[in-house]
Amino acid sequence: MRIYLAGPDVFLPDAARIAEAKKAICAAHGAEGVFPTDLGADHADDGTLPRWYSIYLRNEAHMRGCDAVVANLTPFRGPSADPGTVYELGFMRALGRALAGYSNVAAPFLARSLALPGAGLGADGRYRDADGLAIEDFGLTDNLMIDGGIRAAGGVLVVRDAPPGAMWTDLSAFAECVAALTRREPRPPAARRSPG
Amino acid sequence: MRIYLAGPDVFLPDAARIAEAKKAICAAHGAEGVFPTDLGADHADDGTLPRWYSIYLRNEAHMRGCDAVVANLTPFRGPSADPGTVYELGFMRALGRALAGYSNVAAPFLARSLALPGAGLGADGRYRDADGLAIEDFGLTDNLMIDGGIRAAGGVLVVRDAPPGAMWTDLSAFAECVAALTRREPRPPAARRSPG
Repeated sequence: MRIYLAGPDVFLPDAARIAEAKKAICAAHGAEGVFPTDLGADHADDGTLPRWYSIYLRNEAHMRGCDAVVANLTPFRGPSADPGTVYELGFMRALGRALAGYSNVAAPFLARSLALPGAGLGADGRYRDADGLAIEDFGLTDNLMIDGGIRAAGGVLVVRDAPPGAMWTDLSAFAECVAALTRREPRPPAARRSPG
Repeated sequence: MRIYLAGPDVFLPDAARIAEAKKAICAAHGAEGVFPTDLGADHADDGTLPRWYSIYLRNEAHMRGCDAVVANLTPFRGPSADPGTVYELGFMRALGRALAGYSNVAAPFLARSLALPGAGLGADGRYRDADGLAIEDFGLTDNLMIDGGIRAAGGVLVVRDAPPGAMWTDLSAFAECVAALTRREPRPPAARRSPG
């Protein structure tokens, strides 16, 4: 199983170290982790494309070549997950791939959204942000498309607080996602043993 | 052409009015607009599902039934677009549908991200957020997956400031997206006229 390692981890100062750690966890479960910044020759970069677009095409090619995604959905610069990661989650769902996600922050979406300046209970009894837009109140981890996509794919969503200071580095929830994905994969008949 | 009307418009107090206005613009271009909250009988809701998950399945069914998406990518509760909308953009890209997007805020992603508390130029000469994660500096509208997906699909991204107070209601950029999508669609041969 090839697993696309989606997440804002690419923006970390020690992204290369996190990439190696995630790949080691995948390998320990018999899977191959594919990090967004891994080199890939399977996209049409003739050297004339702007760098950002070449990165996009490489990420898309990586995703098409993977069987599953583990998305780091830890809240990123606001109440929700990193938008690049969310795009990739939707992309992999539409391709019919296996999905798993984790967040290293346990507080639910509603509580995180209500922490925004100007957010609160509106006169109509609905939670609203400073612009008057309704805040989802479904007890979910993030926008319902994120929780819903993972559920529709039969995937796992692991959510818990990382130890203090380790929000961007703790990989225990990530490891749980990899374990769930690889446990589910049917083993080839030759690898099965009948009892006795 | 059926166009999925993705955006945080669903959270507006006057969402029904916006939905009708967007559909009228689509109709004026010979297209059919499909709003996320439109009823749809083509998903497996037997009445026992939680409401949020039923909404997810309906949105997915709407997307699968559409030829294109126009995504409202106006910054939502932070530097980036609404995550539900971004999920849907990635979903439609993976399905190979036509993509268009608009933002009613002209300031680029970098400037919006640098407005976050604690963000700025790091010691290594890269822009970083309060947690030390790098901020993309490609001159784009949002995370590169968003701009990249639209470019890869050959779509349009219309970005400009709406008039004061009309960030969530001005539909001129939306209309430009619909015009671009429908202009591109090949007309049936019978509708063509040869000169002379």
